[in-house]
Amino acid sequence: MTESKESTVRLLITCPDQPGIVAAVSRFLHLKGANIIHSDQHSTDPEGGRFFMRNEFFLPGLDLDGLDGLRREFEEEVTNGFIMDWSLNPVWQPKRMVILCSKVDHALMELLWRWKRGDLEADIAMVVSNHPDLRESVEHFVPFHYVPVGPSLRDKVAAEDRIMELMGDVDLIVLARYMQILTSDFVSRFSNRIINIHHSFLPAFVGADPYRRAHERGVKLIGATAHYVTAELDEGPIIEQDVIRVTHSHDIADLKRLGGDIERHVLARAVKWHLEDRVIVDGNKTIVFRR
Amino acid sequence: MTESKESTVRLLITCPDQPGIVAAVSRFLHLKGANIIHSDQHSTDPEGGRFFMRNEFFLPGLDLDGLDGLRREFEEEVTNGFIMDWSLNPVWQPKRMVILCSKVDHALMELLWRWKRGDLEADIAMVVSNHPDLRESVEHFVPFHYVPVGPSLRDKVAAEDRIMELMGDVDLIVLARYMQILTSDFVSRFSNRIINIHHSFLPAFVGADPYRRAHERGVKLIGATAHYVTAELDEGPIIEQDVIRVTHSHDIADLKRLGGDIERHVLARAVKWHLEDRVIVDGNKTIVFRR
Amino acid sequence: MTESKESTVRLLITCPDQPGIVAAVSRFLHLKGANIIHSDQHSTDPEGGRFFMRNEFFLPGLDLDGLDGLRREFEEEVTNGFIMDWSLNPVWQPKRMVILCSKVDHALMELLWRWKRGDLEADIAMVVSNHPDLRESVEHFVPFHYVPVGPSLRDKVAAEDRIMELMGDVDLIVLARYMQILTSDFVSRFSNRIINIHHSFLPAFVGADPYRRAHERGVKLIGATAHYVTAELDEGPIIEQDVIRVTHSHDIADLKRLGGDIERHVLARAVKWHLEDRVIVDGNKTIVFRR
Amino acid sequence: MTESKESTVRLLITCPDQPGIVAAVSRFLHLKGANIIHSDQHSTDPEGGRFFMRNEFFLPGLDLDGLDGLRREFEEEVTNGFIMDWSLNPVWQPKRMVILCSKVDHALMELLWRWKRGDLEADIAMVVSNHPDLRESVEHFVPFHYVPVGPSLRDKVAAEDRIMELMGDVDLIVLARYMQILTSDFVSRFSNRIINIHHSFLPAFVGADPYRRAHERGVKLIGATAHYVTAELDEGPIIEQDVIRVTHSHDIADLKRLGGDIERHVLARAVKWHLEDRVIVDGNKTIVFRR
Repeated sequence: MTESKESTVRLLITCPDQPGIVAAVSRFLHLKGANIIHSDQHSTDPEGGRFFMRNEFFLPGLDLDGLDGLRREFEEEVTNGFIMDWSLNPVWQPKRMVILCSKVDHALMELLWRWKRGDLEADIAMVVSNHPDLRESVEHFVPFHYVPVGPSLRDKVAAEDRIMELMGDVDLIVLARYMQILTSDFVSRFSNRIINIHHSFLPAFVGADPYRRAHERGVKLIGATAHYVTAELDEGPIIEQDVIRVTHSHDIADLKRLGGDIERHVLARAVKWHLEDRVIVDGNKTIVFRR
Repeated sequence: MTESKESTVRLLITCPDQPGIVAAVSRFLHLKGANIIHSDQHSTDPEGGRFFMRNEFFLPGLDLDGLDGLRREFEEEVTNGFIMDWSLNPVWQPKRMVILCSKVDHALMELLWRWKRGDLEADIAMVVSNHPDLRESVEHFVPFHYVPVGPSLRDKVAAEDRIMELMGDVDLIVLARYMQILTSDFVSRFSNRIINIHHSFLPAFVGADPYRRAHERGVKLIGATAHYVTAELDEGPIIEQDVIRVTHSHDIADLKRLGGDIERHVLARAVKWHLEDRVIVDGNKTIVFRR
Repeated sequence: MTESKESTVRLLITCPDQPGIVAAVSRFLHLKGANIIHSDQHSTDPEGGRFFMRNEFFLPGLDLDGLDGLRREFEEEVTNGFIMDWSLNPVWQPKRMVILCSKVDHALMELLWRWKRGDLEADIAMVVSNHPDLRESVEHFVPFHYVPVGPSLRDKVAAEDRIMELMGDVDLIVLARYMQILTSDFVSRFSNRIINIHHSFLPAFVGADPYRRAHERGVKLIGATAHYVTAELDEGPIIEQDVIRVTHSHDIADLKRLGGDIERHVLARAVKWHLEDRVIVDGNKTIVFRR
Repeated sequence: MTESKESTVRLLITCPDQPGIVAAVSRFLHLKGANIIHSDQHSTDPEGGRFFMRNEFFLPGLDLDGLDGLRREFEEEVTNGFIMDWSLNPVWQPKRMVILCSKVDHALMELLWRWKRGDLEADIAMVVSNHPDLRESVEHFVPFHYVPVGPSLRDKVAAEDRIMELMGDVDLIVLARYMQILTSDFVSRFSNRIINIHHSFLPAFVGADPYRRAHERGVKLIGATAHYVTAELDEGPIIEQDVIRVTHSHDIADLKRLGGDIERHVLARAVKWHLEDRVIVDGNKTIVFRR
């Protein structure tokens, strides 16, 4: 069954686990006439743990005005007695997404290309880069903005201000090999809304030139991790990871090429799941309601 | 969280999808004081489709008598108005399981060994084989019965009768490379309770000596499929599948060895999921609520 | 080590296995002053089997004229006494490649995009399609030719003639979801030089609408196979295969989307290996000297 | 082709790369009347790099006396002019192997069970443990020795002396979750002959209780690494690595169970490859000539 997106809504809930949550939510949806299409839930511990829920439902005739009413009713009729983070997201309104990149295009092009195929539920508003190189490739798909970043912190802040001005309201920022460290101010403004991709190895090779060191160490797997960006570099909640097998006969250039391949696939999955409201952040980890 | 099994129950539901199922079930569980630990659901189509649900919940103090009462109450208070297949299964009572095998031991030993480690929620009552060869290996773990099968249909029926007599009541029969075709009478008596494993290839090689033919064809993957046994040979509902990569340098013996490895892992996963009530059969396919 | 391509040559050999082949070949290369960079070999059976070899070597100063001389010397000094198929391929001359496609772009775009990144050792001369739809996407990379195919066999032959005229000399034809069956005449003219991609399932679903039937059957894996095209449809030598895991919650559209993903990766690997002279055809199977 | 092991020998070579190695070796084998069954080679760089070679060949009638003669001839006729590490290993003489373990049996039992199936080319002389718990499980297969290790370094040295006395000459020591750190003296005595397995994560979790920390961090993959033991703990040359996918719904016990599964498979592959002379150590990395 391929569902139409019209009048379809996703309800995300996070709250301390306690008896009665599912009963209250499902009663509410039933009384409103909603058809539940998908439902996932997870409890870290039914006693004293945290509870997470994702419902995708169809409510015939629901539009944006109706959705506002539904939100008020949910607030009044369900959330009472629970300490609940929740949102009701209209599926027919794609999230507004912006991609930041630098010179390397593999992760960027995978996103643009999947988006063009209709595989990503997003409105990609623009691509912003601190280098002009990828303009032509990008403009084939969406607008491109070149925002150079100077060497000083003052320059960085100015560039971020310019990026925010260009972006306007945004639901998701994807760092597709954007080789600039964002200020903690910028990061906290878009909490759980910035996704980054980086290479991963077993063991980890912290510091410069990790592919060269992975090659010297003779690793048999190289991988990639997509995560939400937090103030601590590359330490935010992990959304997705994957690896690819390598051998002694792969040189450093091969490792980088294969690493790029695994990066683009991992990032594309993480972005797709975020856009489909499948990812809920719980402290420094994620709940991912995959299919 | 590692949950204790005492007073823990799994509720499985299959019914035509219609509004209100989840509300009715969750209200019932809430009113009875149950803590839902895990819940999974799936709808093939909210309009005119089929609905499947698995709930694992903890109800403090519940014992077998209490469970009987709960079943009556569920019947009276919930099922009314729905055409519902359902069961309430006590987690603290492991399923009674019997393994049938012939001469090859790889799938058998994987099951026995995982079971001994506490990885399979079963009471493995016995192993039955139509050959005596594996007696010593098996008796290290569980009782072994040798039930030879003669060449005639009459012999086969007699052997199956003997097996049923030995088994008594049984929740699951696993064919761990049991090289006998079961009668359709036997199969229908244990509907959705017999799991078989067989090799799988892309493309398929129907008939004799598939590994030789896969080798001649130069396939790059060999696989295995675990499924419930139905009257149609190897055509029952698929529970799990997996593959392993092979190359031109693997000879036929290598393919068989690697095929055996993938078979034992696929079968072990299918059996584990069945024992944990994660598999619901829907016509000729399965819903598998994996983690 | 990332090797320069200049003066680098690949030697491919197929012959009945017999003592002395490696000694003769390696002595020849040593006397000519060649540095062997990579060497792979395979024997189906040292007694009465077939032997396959791939050598990549560097011979300082070698150009196309020198290569012609080397070929003559190899013929005279090595092949005597062996029934040998062999070729010496200059790495600095990329193979001339043409892609045929129809309306679906996933496999095509993956190839174009990898090629643009420098990941495919080819000169992609053009893309030819029996539909005009993909012109714009393609012309961003390479020339596009629209060659419609009428309903009659006469039309098909005319279209193939037109394609051959457009292509000129060509080392590799890739069918990236080209939805036309080629004539056996065309196929035999480009023996072991046409690569096709198609979906693969366990079990196989021959005939129409395989994704719908895979969904109905509840398969847990869907896959793809890349192979050389022979007169027997989809039965040619397999170059590469892979699968992706699916669940009951994927609908038919999801299966098609995931199938498309696995197709584009499998095809890209097969094409890359062909271009790097890693694939040797042996009857109806392949030897693939992967890294 | 399943080759007989009689009169079959494996030649391993490591040396600085320079022209003429392959020519010299293949000429030698040809003149001696050897049939090469498999041959693999690798060069880190044809100019100034290192060269590695593995040849498996059949020399009719060769026995241990003949092998000694062949070694002398190889020394005299081939190694001159090269700085070569090499060995000629009779395939018909399985390597003598000892397993050290503690209380956990998953990796141990996988090895014993594969060995019993004929999948490991070894003579497993005994299992030694610093705990008596696994005696019964082991004695079903091979002799078991309990060698407790006291808290002081003196105790440890005494235990290692006792282990060496029990083992006698040994080609391979496998640490199947042996929870004792070996002295550097012991380690250096069995250089490149001790294989260990440990869990691996992305990112790495150094220190205590890594599974708990991996769970807190919400990793999506857990893995295992098999490596040769060197004086630096868990930093020796990597032989094999693999990972398994996990989700938010796996608790710490699940991660440990799945981690144990991946450990036993990775260790079994590493041991198998070592026994088949497929692994050559190059500084702190390995060349693995897999099939």
